[in-house]
Amino acid sequence: MCEGAGGVDVLKVAEIEDPTPAADEVVIDVVAAGVNRADLLQREGHYPPPPGAPGTLGLEVSGTISAVGAEVEGWSVGDECCALLAGGGYAEKVAVPAPQVMPVPEGVDLVSAAALPEVVATVWSNVFMAAHLKDGETLLVHGGASGIGTMAIQLGVAHGARVLCTVGSTDKMDFCTRLGADVAINYKEAEWASVVKEATGKAGADVILDIMGAKYLQDNVRSLAFDGRLAVIGMQGGTKGELDLGRLMSRRGSITGTGLRVRSVEDKGRILDEVVGHVWPLITAKKVRPIVYRTFPLEDVALAHETLEQSSQIGKVLLTL
Amino acid sequence: MCEGAGGVDVLKVAEIEDPTPAADEVVIDVVAAGVNRADLLQREGHYPPPPGAPGTLGLEVSGTISAVGAEVEGWSVGDECCALLAGGGYAEKVAVPAPQVMPVPEGVDLVSAAALPEVVATVWSNVFMAAHLKDGETLLVHGGASGIGTMAIQLGVAHGARVLCTVGSTDKMDFCTRLGADVAINYKEAEWASVVKEATGKAGADVILDIMGAKYLQDNVRSLAFDGRLAVIGMQGGTKGELDLGRLMSRRGSITGTGLRVRSVEDKGRILDEVVGHVWPLITAKKVRPIVYRTFPLEDVALAHETLEQSSQIGKVLLTL
Repeated sequence: MCEGAGGVDVLKVAEIEDPTPAADEVVIDVVAAGVNRADLLQREGHYPPPPGAPGTLGLEVSGTISAVGAEVEGWSVGDECCALLAGGGYAEKVAVPAPQVMPVPEGVDLVSAAALPEVVATVWSNVFMAAHLKDGETLLVHGGASGIGTMAIQLGVAHGARVLCTVGSTDKMDFCTRLGADVAINYKEAEWASVVKEATGKAGADVILDIMGAKYLQDNVRSLAFDGRLAVIGMQGGTKGELDLGRLMSRRGSITGTGLRVRSVEDKGRILDEVVGHVWPLITAKKVRPIVYRTFPLEDVALAHETLEQSSQIGKVLLTL
Repeated sequence: MCEGAGGVDVLKVAEIEDPTPAADEVVIDVVAAGVNRADLLQREGHYPPPPGAPGTLGLEVSGTISAVGAEVEGWSVGDECCALLAGGGYAEKVAVPAPQVMPVPEGVDLVSAAALPEVVATVWSNVFMAAHLKDGETLLVHGGASGIGTMAIQLGVAHGARVLCTVGSTDKMDFCTRLGADVAINYKEAEWASVVKEATGKAGADVILDIMGAKYLQDNVRSLAFDGRLAVIGMQGGTKGELDLGRLMSRRGSITGTGLRVRSVEDKGRILDEVVGHVWPLITAKKVRPIVYRTFPLEDVALAHETLEQSSQIGKVLLTL
């Protein structure tokens, strides 16, 4: 939990009361929890939990079900699972509405399963459900080596798209290329928008998955193909940017801004149903895999946060309980 | 046609060669042509016709088919029709790809039919095909008394939406209310965004159809409901505006910029097929009607353009041949 808001020194491990499940909830005995950039923002006081959500950090976990609410069907005590949370994942136990719980995909160990819920739900809902990436189209992924980026590259490739990505180091370029990205651009060494333009024969990208927000807005709009779709899911480069509507119209483009956390339980459930139907078979078939960079014990949560702050990781950072 | 670019004095009536239809085209003997704001921009040199389009102004006509290309099925010489054009409508004859031609809806006279193609195709493709306006949702229409605005209000109401609109005069407020708008806001006398906020109980509009571009961008994003969709189809208030991505994300909103003219023949055909299937029955049932403000003979084209420039009209301005 956080004592106040600020740097990693506000992170404290403390005893909290065990949750009891509401009628539509299960309680999960947590084995591992994913660390997300949103957790860093919440720790700093910039991203308060939605009303009713636990104040403890943590948006995703894997573990074993230890209690089942009266109205829940399909889950039993002892079942292994992973889940998307509105908060409370950095804990030994967490209560979560049943629609936000998924089985562990066949072939994935229980710890690594904690690396999946946020990234698969984010990529699937944005790139496939909202932007309708199609076979043969071009997908541009910013932050290709992040947890979301590595999943977006794999899912794009698995669906027959040509994938371009931006990253911040040579190591990350290599990693993303091995994951299937056709072009990995080090934004520190090249103007990524120029490389995208050249690599697509001036056509641009059909879908762009962006985490930079304002900083990349103009170049993203310039990099959209005809009928292109820009999905903004992060604002690491600020929130307010200049939008050239003339250029957007000339490309017949669209811009969508979304977050998972603000969605209703039903909405999350709908996304996760699709994920289990469409992504889990790809994981079982070894076409897509969770990418775990490093696992820290809960006591080292400060180190885990610092790892994300330095953006040196490739894939996901996890905490184990 | 235009001799050079500039004010209404560049508009000249001249003899041009009669078109012959390509294999996939018909030739229409024009009875009436719609006057659009895009024609004014093209006259001023700001909106050049796409490659291959006639240099003569005019994006929509009604008339009678006088020649049919070898591969065209379903149209015969003598058929009455209306059509969406890439240009060339201010003329006695115009050649147009068959997918861009529609029958005249039952109960509409041939001159008034020229008021339909641009507005129905624009409203249908943006508000219904792209933004998926649903029964019970709220639609905000900027420029409610324009050709597009009057069609958007009627189609929104016919589909069970609550419609709000902005207009520039008391006369226009009255007209839009009679068309079915629940709230008509005179933007000269009230802050429209505050009125929208109040009228929707702070919820905002599910779909916004915008013609102002940059000038309204911030207020439009602020006025979006959760999951709201902003469709920008005009930029009368400039092209470059500040976009607050944080606010867009907090509403899970989307922004789309589109134009009809840049679409392919197949794409236009797909839209018009839906229009004939969904909008024509509403017109025949008298639930929706073309709103013609005034009809000018071709010689008075300068007056027609001046009418649009003054924004004093309610509904469409037509030229008759």
